[in-house]
Amino acid sequence: MNLSMIFYILSWVICFSGVFLTVPTLTAAAYGEWNVFFVYLALAVIYFSVGFLLTRKKPKKKSFHARDGYVAVALSWFLVSVLGALPLFLSGDIPNFIDALFEAVSGFTTTGATILDDVEVISRAGSFWRCFTHWIGGMGILVFVMAIFSVAGGSGIYLMRAESTGATVEKLVPKIRESAGLLYSIYTGLTVLEVALLMMGGMDIYEALTASFSTAGTGGFSTLNSSIAGYSPFIQYVVAIFMALFGLNFNVYFCLMLKKYRRAFGLEEFHWYAFIMALATLIVWFDNVSSFPTIEEAFRHSFFQVSSIMTTTGSLSVMTLADWGWLSKGVLVILMFIGACGGSTGGGIKISRLLILGKYCKQKVRSLLHPKLVSKFKVNGSDVSHDTTSSVIVYFIGYVFIFTMSALVVLIIERCDLITVFTCTASMINNVGPAFSLTGYVSSFRAFSGVTKIIYMFDMIAGRLEIIPMLVMISYFGGGASKSVRFLTRAAVSRDDEEDNSSN
Amino acid sequence: MNLSMIFYILSWVICFSGVFLTVPTLTAAAYGEWNVFFVYLALAVIYFSVGFLLTRKKPKKKSFHARDGYVAVALSWFLVSVLGALPLFLSGDIPNFIDALFEAVSGFTTTGATILDDVEVISRAGSFWRCFTHWIGGMGILVFVMAIFSVAGGSGIYLMRAESTGATVEKLVPKIRESAGLLYSIYTGLTVLEVALLMMGGMDIYEALTASFSTAGTGGFSTLNSSIAGYSPFIQYVVAIFMALFGLNFNVYFCLMLKKYRRAFGLEEFHWYAFIMALATLIVWFDNVSSFPTIEEAFRHSFFQVSSIMTTTGSLSVMTLADWGWLSKGVLVILMFIGACGGSTGGGIKISRLLILGKYCKQKVRSLLHPKLVSKFKVNGSDVSHDTTSSVIVYFIGYVFIFTMSALVVLIIERCDLITVFTCTASMINNVGPAFSLTGYVSSFRAFSGVTKIIYMFDMIAGRLEIIPMLVMISYFGGGASKSVRFLTRAAVSRDDEEDNSSN
Repeated sequence: MNLSMIFYILSWVICFSGVFLTVPTLTAAAYGEWNVFFVYLALAVIYFSVGFLLTRKKPKKKSFHARDGYVAVALSWFLVSVLGALPLFLSGDIPNFIDALFEAVSGFTTTGATILDDVEVISRAGSFWRCFTHWIGGMGILVFVMAIFSVAGGSGIYLMRAESTGATVEKLVPKIRESAGLLYSIYTGLTVLEVALLMMGGMDIYEALTASFSTAGTGGFSTLNSSIAGYSPFIQYVVAIFMALFGLNFNVYFCLMLKKYRRAFGLEEFHWYAFIMALATLIVWFDNVSSFPTIEEAFRHSFFQVSSIMTTTGSLSVMTLADWGWLSKGVLVILMFIGACGGSTGGGIKISRLLILGKYCKQKVRSLLHPKLVSKFKVNGSDVSHDTTSSVIVYFIGYVFIFTMSALVVLIIERCDLITVFTCTASMINNVGPAFSLTGYVSSFRAFSGVTKIIYMFDMIAGRLEIIPMLVMISYFGGGASKSVRFLTRAAVSRDDEEDNSSN
Repeated sequence: MNLSMIFYILSWVICFSGVFLTVPTLTAAAYGEWNVFFVYLALAVIYFSVGFLLTRKKPKKKSFHARDGYVAVALSWFLVSVLGALPLFLSGDIPNFIDALFEAVSGFTTTGATILDDVEVISRAGSFWRCFTHWIGGMGILVFVMAIFSVAGGSGIYLMRAESTGATVEKLVPKIRESAGLLYSIYTGLTVLEVALLMMGGMDIYEALTASFSTAGTGGFSTLNSSIAGYSPFIQYVVAIFMALFGLNFNVYFCLMLKKYRRAFGLEEFHWYAFIMALATLIVWFDNVSSFPTIEEAFRHSFFQVSSIMTTTGSLSVMTLADWGWLSKGVLVILMFIGACGGSTGGGIKISRLLILGKYCKQKVRSLLHPKLVSKFKVNGSDVSHDTTSSVIVYFIGYVFIFTMSALVVLIIERCDLITVFTCTASMINNVGPAFSLTGYVSSFRAFSGVTKIIYMFDMIAGRLEIIPMLVMISYFGGGASKSVRFLTRAAVSRDDEEDNSSN
């Protein structure tokens, strides 16, 4: 493990956290929230200078492997969560540190589950920061750092692989820095377009920016308790469509930029994404059509909710989902697990992974029937390598294991009903946000105990980083810890032996 | 595909179905239920003679592969379910054929879910037959046939692999027929022991036999609505312990017979099975301790229910689980999925499979950290082959897929709450029997629609045969069907072309 290089990368993460904090600092200034302004400014300056000083210590070794990438990314996300929680905590917006940390993790991982019962009482800068963390976390913190400059030769591809979503990472262009830059350009472009449309629909710049950050990262935080429910149908359609757009594989946009239309619209994952979204919208619409005054309204809310949950955003176009039927709730829960496309800002298992698992299964069964068959299959038009398949399988097993263990421990701690524990845990690991309870709808996670919140923070990060970085980190540090324990035990035993010998 | 051999095997299955039916025929005679007696007798004679006649047509080809084994076993189970449902239907015990079929499938697959609201109104012969199907299905129909005589050279191992539970099948002794015979000897021996103990506890021979068949197959049918709840603590402990014993890998008993104690008690799967059962019992006991008059009673029911659900039997030592806490219910639902040991009569995913999945995952993560590591791991003391691992992975993916699709379709049809649809589907695919509803406990499946019952029958057979035979069968017949469709379409198109040409 190249620890000096990982330390170097973490230093840059601290430095950039300072840069990110300038955005809410300016917001605080714009709205005259001076108490909050000084907290944010102070932290921004501290982060930037400490980080910058630490980056002066250049790494000795340059060699950087996949494992280093996983550990660097996992540690970066823990670090950035703490750094992002401090302004919320120190400004007094969220006076409990665990809660502030939960909110920051929920923000960066684009989950959008809040511990605030009333999101409208905190400062405008705090609210803006919450939504901005979605935007940063959506595409990735280290991807952002890499878009600005090459961190260190060779490490980029591993960092990008570990932080991007989906089973494979296709570099859009040969150079990592340009790829990262291109991703952020598409991302920014779409965000700006959404801001413009939302302002056309009547939002002010603050509302439009926060709502767009929340949509772009497929996060779901809102500056209002009513989320998108209080806005006009036009705005609801815009948000619903943009959620769907941000849940799409960004390769599609890249192909469109290159005018490779056939390739863009021919992407297998795109077809399944559109098909599942359309089918789910139809089922939910059919289930809800009698509960709304008009057919259009039923369609709008059904499409909005399907798009919101499948892309794992979690925004709402209605005040509550408590009175929706079980069929709709069931479909939404299944969508939580399916999730969006790989290579998007969305969460969940992702369609490309499900395609790989399904095709692997189909191919193995076919090879039982026709033993001479070549064991190959394609997803999105390219052969899936043996390594990719096995990493998807490891992901899937790890995912099911983490999900089950988290649900069990939360059940033991909270002793709440199975619907709450199942959908809350699903919501966390898939980075969705809202969840159901026996009687209705979970809108705030404040009531859970501290231990549950800590488990859920782990789940959110594990879900966002797609399991494997967490497993590698646990295996590395767990292995290290058990080695030290064995070393200490052996040392203690041998000393006992010596004492025994000397007393003889 | 060796269809003539498969046909030959199915003929033997018909023949043996007649043999099995003599047991309830004798019961009907013993209790003077003459109307029922003639139905059972007639069917027994017909099955036996038709089956025997069909076996006169010897298969032409001898070659028999894994795929043939899977398809033969899958078809056998569909066939035997229909043959087993007919006596229940024709005797008037269950006047609806779909219901009778559901009851037979639930019996043979050792699920134990009933469509009878009152199981005490049907004939004693019918009740006996229901429990006896558990006993036959537990160890396997074709394994029974093979224990009597060698079906055909070379086909045995594939049939045994496809019908036995668990990820691998260790032949106890080199010859298949002897292995099958040994399994049935251990199985019969344990059953006789249980019958003796239950009779010592005060049951009459009818009660003791039906309860033992139900325990031995880890099925759960009972001749009483109150299951085991009305019996003495002694009987409840006997049943609880025997459920646990039948959920254990039968290799343990074989090793004990050979006096290989170290090997028997050293089996990894055994350790995990005991550990999980003990931990679950502790949690459920802790959750229930205040709801029972004495600590012993709380322990007894907790242990009974954990043993019953983990071995996927589904018997009850209390009248209802409706008033148990959510923590207990949650633990029981997780146990449904874990299931018993491979090589037992129990259902669920099985511990050996979970061990293979977990170790595969661990080994792959470790190989990311140490790329030069040899990619091998052991379960139960032997190396797990690449083929075994990939078949376990295919099983797992297929299992999750079938579970999710079944739950979704049932949700669309029934529009019931998520707890009911989730636990009922889990109960079916894991061959457990009972399930929970939003308000309590599902004791009968009668209220579900016909389509739901058909889906659940498929799930029960898929669960009992452990997914892969079903996937192979669907792939084979699905492939055949799509080929015929393509052939017919092509034929139709070419005829159209000809007509076009001739009209030109």
